[in-house]
Amino acid sequence: MPDNANTEFNVTTGALPGSEKIFVRSENRDDVRVPMREIHLHPSANEVPVRVYDTSGPYTDPKAKIDIYEGLPEMRKQWILERGDVEEYEGREVKPEDNGNASEKYLAPEFPVKKTPLRAKEGMNVTQMHYARKGIITPEMEFVAVRENLGRKAQAEKLEREGESFGANIPDYITPEFVREEIATGRAVLVNNVNHPESEPMIIGRNFLVKINANIGNSAVSSSISEEVDKMVWATRWGADTVMDLSTGRNIHNTREWIIRNSPVPIGTVPIYQALEKVDGIAEDLTWEIYRDTLIEQCEQGVDYFTIHAGVRLPFIHLTAKRVTGIVSRGGSIMAKWCLAHHKESFLYTHFEEICEILKKYDVAFSLGDGFRPGSIADANDEAQFAELRTLGELTKIAWEHDVQVFIEGPGHVPMNKIKVNMEEQLKHCHEAPFYTLGPLTTDIAPGYDHITSAIGAAQIGWYGTAMLCYVTPKEHLGLPDRNDVKEGVITYKLAAHAADLAKGHPASQIRDDALSRARYEFRWEDQFNLSLDPERARDFHDQTLPKEAHKVAHFCSMCGPKFCSMKITQEVRDYAAQKEEAETGMKQMSEEFKKLGSELYLPAEKIDAAE
Amino acid sequence: MPDNANTEFNVTTGALPGSEKIFVRSENRDDVRVPMREIHLHPSANEVPVRVYDTSGPYTDPKAKIDIYEGLPEMRKQWILERGDVEEYEGREVKPEDNGNASEKYLAPEFPVKKTPLRAKEGMNVTQMHYARKGIITPEMEFVAVRENLGRKAQAEKLEREGESFGANIPDYITPEFVREEIATGRAVLVNNVNHPESEPMIIGRNFLVKINANIGNSAVSSSISEEVDKMVWATRWGADTVMDLSTGRNIHNTREWIIRNSPVPIGTVPIYQALEKVDGIAEDLTWEIYRDTLIEQCEQGVDYFTIHAGVRLPFIHLTAKRVTGIVSRGGSIMAKWCLAHHKESFLYTHFEEICEILKKYDVAFSLGDGFRPGSIADANDEAQFAELRTLGELTKIAWEHDVQVFIEGPGHVPMNKIKVNMEEQLKHCHEAPFYTLGPLTTDIAPGYDHITSAIGAAQIGWYGTAMLCYVTPKEHLGLPDRNDVKEGVITYKLAAHAADLAKGHPASQIRDDALSRARYEFRWEDQFNLSLDPERARDFHDQTLPKEAHKVAHFCSMCGPKFCSMKITQEVRDYAAQKEEAETGMKQMSEEFKKLGSELYLPAEKIDAAE
Repeated sequence: MPDNANTEFNVTTGALPGSEKIFVRSENRDDVRVPMREIHLHPSANEVPVRVYDTSGPYTDPKAKIDIYEGLPEMRKQWILERGDVEEYEGREVKPEDNGNASEKYLAPEFPVKKTPLRAKEGMNVTQMHYARKGIITPEMEFVAVRENLGRKAQAEKLEREGESFGANIPDYITPEFVREEIATGRAVLVNNVNHPESEPMIIGRNFLVKINANIGNSAVSSSISEEVDKMVWATRWGADTVMDLSTGRNIHNTREWIIRNSPVPIGTVPIYQALEKVDGIAEDLTWEIYRDTLIEQCEQGVDYFTIHAGVRLPFIHLTAKRVTGIVSRGGSIMAKWCLAHHKESFLYTHFEEICEILKKYDVAFSLGDGFRPGSIADANDEAQFAELRTLGELTKIAWEHDVQVFIEGPGHVPMNKIKVNMEEQLKHCHEAPFYTLGPLTTDIAPGYDHITSAIGAAQIGWYGTAMLCYVTPKEHLGLPDRNDVKEGVITYKLAAHAADLAKGHPASQIRDDALSRARYEFRWEDQFNLSLDPERARDFHDQTLPKEAHKVAHFCSMCGPKFCSMKITQEVRDYAAQKEEAETGMKQMSEEFKKLGSELYLPAEKIDAAE
Repeated sequence: MPDNANTEFNVTTGALPGSEKIFVRSENRDDVRVPMREIHLHPSANEVPVRVYDTSGPYTDPKAKIDIYEGLPEMRKQWILERGDVEEYEGREVKPEDNGNASEKYLAPEFPVKKTPLRAKEGMNVTQMHYARKGIITPEMEFVAVRENLGRKAQAEKLEREGESFGANIPDYITPEFVREEIATGRAVLVNNVNHPESEPMIIGRNFLVKINANIGNSAVSSSISEEVDKMVWATRWGADTVMDLSTGRNIHNTREWIIRNSPVPIGTVPIYQALEKVDGIAEDLTWEIYRDTLIEQCEQGVDYFTIHAGVRLPFIHLTAKRVTGIVSRGGSIMAKWCLAHHKESFLYTHFEEICEILKKYDVAFSLGDGFRPGSIADANDEAQFAELRTLGELTKIAWEHDVQVFIEGPGHVPMNKIKVNMEEQLKHCHEAPFYTLGPLTTDIAPGYDHITSAIGAAQIGWYGTAMLCYVTPKEHLGLPDRNDVKEGVITYKLAAHAADLAKGHPASQIRDDALSRARYEFRWEDQFNLSLDPERARDFHDQTLPKEAHKVAHFCSMCGPKFCSMKITQEVRDYAAQKEEAETGMKQMSEEFKKLGSELYLPAEKIDAAE
């Protein structure tokens, strides 16, 4: 059996340490039950559990039955059907070229359950933007409102706001009406194909929590279906808000089906990748008809958003000629090649309204691709990049005329001093449609560490207003990410997104930092591990220096050792400050007290050894 | 034999891949030979080698004889002696408490070569600042000027300046006179104890390249001398500009001697750590006399800069009482405890002028410590922190009256929106003395990834003007860094410092990025590996997906595979643009040409397989 047929699944399930899956019901609808994760703290903390955003779906719910061969429950199906504007229909037949003409032993198995696709009834438009503009608050919007709040109301005293949000308009409390309005204006996207009812609604917009995307996908060179499904589950376990399937080579269709049916988060793709496979990798053989057919194929499967490089226009291509790294976007270069070969305007641009007509039947969102994104510091912010950005702004307006949801992709490789203008130009030319950037990488000299070169840029651009950050793994520029790289990339981007939320002054975003800092200060090691983005690594690193169980309740750590500890001093300072407030007298006497107190703070070394 | 006595050294030596150690002679002095690393590129690149800053000392010089038991050659000794202002003297006797009263099998071996210390002759002042203010350009300054330029003159066309430097004054070309002036004003520090003549001069200041520091040091809990020497050599191999020895516990004196004698970079310490060991860990038993004696002990050994928490003043201590994490600086909490126990002003503050008198005899620089740095996002930028910062500014003025060099330590844990004001306040209150920050960490929720949470902050504050960034390793808050953590921390901070240099518009800083990007674009894999900060990891990651040797000359990579490659398209775009310029006619015909060209670009899959 070839690798591609490997369907022995072994995805990671079970709760994260110290965590419990809870469901928060909307005040307005009983059937809107939003999953969250509560991290329980040690009783000595005397604190309420910390509630965190949970992207992991049923996989972390011990009560859920997980069967990859069946897919996840269709949690949104009823909401979609009850609106009465969709119909089941006999979908497009799967063709051999959908799987790169793989046959027999090379053909990956089909997903065992056949789904009949839905689409809008004739004349109908089923996008969340369409409903929002009609004033309708959908259950999906209710879901998102509950999800974004994370129980902020209960912790109203934590709402103190201090950040700098660069003109974002983040309310103290997210109402369903606020969600509706943000979607109606195009400032936010609720991305949810009617054919992916397994996904849990989430929102992308600069007035909400900053989101992250993880890329997975097999390539012509390596990887199998089970690996990709595993990576998807693994990425969402650690916090990926959406996943892009960037598969190339054979078996794209079948691989994608397994992924979508099992994904609790929206799935994005770059349809031109599959279209290219259908013409055997010869870009100039691409046609609008092949591309269109690929869009429908993927709409029916349930892809939630499409990267479409419709801004790669013939008149801009020569602007990249003097670049150090030319065109590095795969989709961008495919279209550039096509335009040059035919000396014609891109069919993505000329057929843009037809694409809108398709997308609004399924509620697939545009992720307008930046085919001219800079691939090196040298090429950042050049005219090719900005000419394309302005075009994406024009296309945004057209999509919005169809009530099709849009977000805009951004760079790439950009030195820190050139990051902010990217955000400003995007807001200006793309009418506040959400920005979705790859990094940006702030230097080119650290292959192997580009999750970090890019996290530096991502945190900044997230702070300035980017709504979703596309992760970069340590393997960027060098190879395909494996499971470990996926986790490293996701955690790195979660921390960057969170740093951005803090800096923006997102209400209540500091609750987790504060809880972890208190745990650290009070030597509640288990709480510190459990509150961290990667409890496994935190524990593992601690145990490398102080492996014994006794040390996890020890009131010291390996940095200072048992005899002296900075953190302990603070209690004395507090006592002092309290006394100082009470009376500014009797100082001499107090000094004696401190001496006494202090001597007791130091356990003799023997006692420590015995405790081990 | 206890661990501490392990002196079986196994430090890493030898050139980095594709690299050659060269020495650039100063135009003004024949005996100033500055080591640099040249990275040679593949002949097909037709490019000059890329010259990079080299902190690794003789260890990467294949011609150097390395003997840890002998120490490095005393490259600066002659320069120090020829000034005629120092004298050899019978140094302080090593006392049992210098090594924590370790005896017999617990006592780590002494360094085998005994050195007679130097100090300024009576009434003399041997600091670089003193010379600079007298208008003298020392060989050390000559060295630094050559070192900072990295052959910029030869690549004058690369000097195009684009950054935003926030008021820094970075010249196109560094002259010895510029170095002198920066030191004279206190804007830069050339840190070089006369008793550490093995070190290669380097400069810390915001008008120079951003530097990084790596912390090493054993603790009461673990680690041996050979491990610490290995970490020091390892850290400088990957780019540490200075190393701080933060050892605690026993054997501090002997461990430090091995480190200093073998270190090509300046060594910093926190003397209060050793002083505390001398009083058996009881902070309130510390006295000025014990501390003073420790300073002299370390001055004689050759420590180049001291972290001194002289801004932790009694009247400020109560300001930390309401913090989430109180006082987290070890030195700060030791002094706070002392002040409270005695209800007295800190002896570091009251004896500050006496400390200046000692330091100027050896040219040891102050690193004025931030004992009240915030240990959590919640505590950032509070009054305790800024009250201390203003005090450090007062103390800077006093040190400068003695011509003693000073830099200022900064936080800590700071959300992005509060970073910039740290730099601004520091510049304002500390009179442009160089800033030296730990991170800052931009969120508290990612233990195990704090090299990244902090690199985000470090890159930003470096851009704003911080002169040296103290690394944070993945083990921060969890345990002591091992060899791998040291490398991860150093590379992470090198890339952050470089991102800052790029953003500041440091002249010629983009040369390496551009060379690497061209190598990437032209599929010169070996060049791409060799130009990267971590050639080993870059190669290893590449080989995990495409291990075969043939792939390293292949004109494709694992991301797109052999059949389609973005980078290849660019050549076609260039041809197109060239033709477009020549004539805007004959377009139809050209389209045919492209079709032909394009088809040839795709090797059939069989050919690729055969090539493997």
